[in-house]
Amino acid sequence: MKYDTRKDQIIQTSAILFQKKGFSAVTMRDIAKAMGIKAASLYNHIKSKQEILSEIIISLAEQFTEQMKIIKNSNDSSIDKLKQIVALHVNITSKNQFEMSSLNSDWMHLEAELEYYLKLRKNYENDFRSIIEKGIQDNELINGNPEVMLFSMLSTLRSLYIWLPKKEDLDIGKFTTELSLVLINGINK
Amino acid sequence: MKYDTRKDQIIQTSAILFQKKGFSAVTMRDIAKAMGIKAASLYNHIKSKQEILSEIIISLAEQFTEQMKIIKNSNDSSIDKLKQIVALHVNITSKNQFEMSSLNSDWMHLEAELEYYLKLRKNYENDFRSIIEKGIQDNELINGNPEVMLFSMLSTLRSLYIWLPKKEDLDIGKFTTELSLVLINGINK
Repeated sequence: MKYDTRKDQIIQTSAILFQKKGFSAVTMRDIAKAMGIKAASLYNHIKSKQEILSEIIISLAEQFTEQMKIIKNSNDSSIDKLKQIVALHVNITSKNQFEMSSLNSDWMHLEAELEYYLKLRKNYENDFRSIIEKGIQDNELINGNPEVMLFSMLSTLRSLYIWLPKKEDLDIGKFTTELSLVLINGINK
Repeated sequence: MKYDTRKDQIIQTSAILFQKKGFSAVTMRDIAKAMGIKAASLYNHIKSKQEILSEIIISLAEQFTEQMKIIKNSNDSSIDKLKQIVALHVNITSKNQFEMSSLNSDWMHLEAELEYYLKLRKNYENDFRSIIEKGIQDNELINGNPEVMLFSMLSTLRSLYIWLPKKEDLDIGKFTTELSLVLINGINK
């Protein structure tokens, strides 16, 4: 994420602090201190920790939602759609590693936006599931348990922020191909 | 987990509260209240939130470590060892869903035991990786990136506490077989 504006910089700094200390333990004062500014100036840009959290999480959730709709509505095969979903997670995570950590660990601290976030997440899972179910129907995928297939893939994709190699060392295309191979074709020879 | 002793009951109640409110936000007073006892009686059994956290996490980490050693040192094929690791995670998670949530979300709040926990986790990952590497050498597994294979499997197994069906509805043997199939053989027909 580029530091386009002071607000973006606040969000980025906060996401790093949330990961380090846990959302509940971070204060607006901590955020101001980490940025080397006074708490009073922080409040010129953003009104609460809750607003920061909402900016981080809802913005990411909407990016996932928007891209998922495009993938779902295309005419590609189910396998190709699943590969595009893997690429989507690798791309967003590689650009927003701390924000993805906050999305994963702190979503339950959302207040006004909690319901909206849960709706986006539910819809995302439903779209993902429908792609898997279509793949089973069309005989592209094994006749397995779609819930196990969904949550197995999704758990790995949602944990990417923890183990994705640091950006400098990462060949995103190669990594996406390797991960798709493991998630879709398995590891058994 | 059975309520064998008052201490176990404290640990179970705490794990539920940690998941609900986040570790940092839970107080000893909250734990006492949830158990319907006075804070003073709580301190007769356990001296701090830190001791509770350590009891939850180190006990689980040691169970995983012990079982992993047995799996690693057996003469089974690499594929069979990986299936045993899947079964290990399903078994421990199905019996300790809240404690596994705390392990996953709260380990960074450990103090005196943090280093020991990180050592156990590192060793566990090393053993898991060595099983995968041996499987690649022996031509049992695809010649893929062992890090991607390791963290893809491990991410799914570590997230099981989130999506494993509730105990009453769960046929553990069937679920383990389905999950092994997806993780090892993939979903592509």
